[in-house]
Amino acid sequence: MERIPILKLGDVLLVSIHDELQDQRVLTLQEDLAEKLGSTGAHGLVIDISAVEIVDSFIGRMFATIASISRLFDADTVVVGMRPAVAITLVELGLPLGNVRTALNLEKGMAILAKLAAARGVTTIEDEDEPVYDPPVQASP
Amino acid sequence: MERIPILKLGDVLLVSIHDELQDQRVLTLQEDLAEKLGSTGAHGLVIDISAVEIVDSFIGRMFATIASISRLFDADTVVVGMRPAVAITLVELGLPLGNVRTALNLEKGMAILAKLAAARGVTTIEDEDEPVYDPPVQASP
Repeated sequence: MERIPILKLGDVLLVSIHDELQDQRVLTLQEDLAEKLGSTGAHGLVIDISAVEIVDSFIGRMFATIASISRLFDADTVVVGMRPAVAITLVELGLPLGNVRTALNLEKGMAILAKLAAARGVTTIEDEDEPVYDPPVQASP
Repeated sequence: MERIPILKLGDVLLVSIHDELQDQRVLTLQEDLAEKLGSTGAHGLVIDISAVEIVDSFIGRMFATIASISRLFDADTVVVGMRPAVAITLVELGLPLGNVRTALNLEKGMAILAKLAAARGVTTIEDEDEPVYDPPVQASP
């Protein structure tokens, strides 16, 4: 089973979900996320679900579970790119999104996380002396 | 067949490839990318392949093809997160990566694109009057 890659951008983690998720894969993702949140000290997590067309109650609860886990690592969670049909299904299923915030797209989600971090007094990478990006490493000639 | 989502972050597009790609899906991705490059005016494209464990010659050529397409839309392409086994395979297959640059991870890839854009005198979104991020829209209470 392939794992869902977790990308790091500044002090935000980014997960993009492509397929309809199997339950086991969701559990693996939760473990990977917890590990990565701990190892990176990220203050935010963006879950992109723009490719997700169908949700069931298990997937719906996943968002709240992941957000609760992130909370324990002092990180906020934003779900971005929700399709209208998915939003309607979540409401019809009566699923609580818990601590999950939502945004229209990745950029707006990143903006929310930056505001939340600032409001909580988190030292973001931008505030530190080190630059956000390391000097580029260029492999091809 | 599900499409691979293309995320937009500032004036960079981001594609994360999770699975071993079928040929038809690659063609669809190329079309989607060309359309998105045209509609957004992005100056860069990052392809994350950290979840890709196996490549064949078709996939190997895909990178060069996508980079050539991006070039026509005045955008640079960086492939990030390549696994060691994939790198070895690409060399053994003798596949030319063409205009494709590579970087260790997403952050370094973004840094390369920012430098390339600056070198080419591209007006990045940061230079314009409008803020990079719109005011956050918050859906959950």
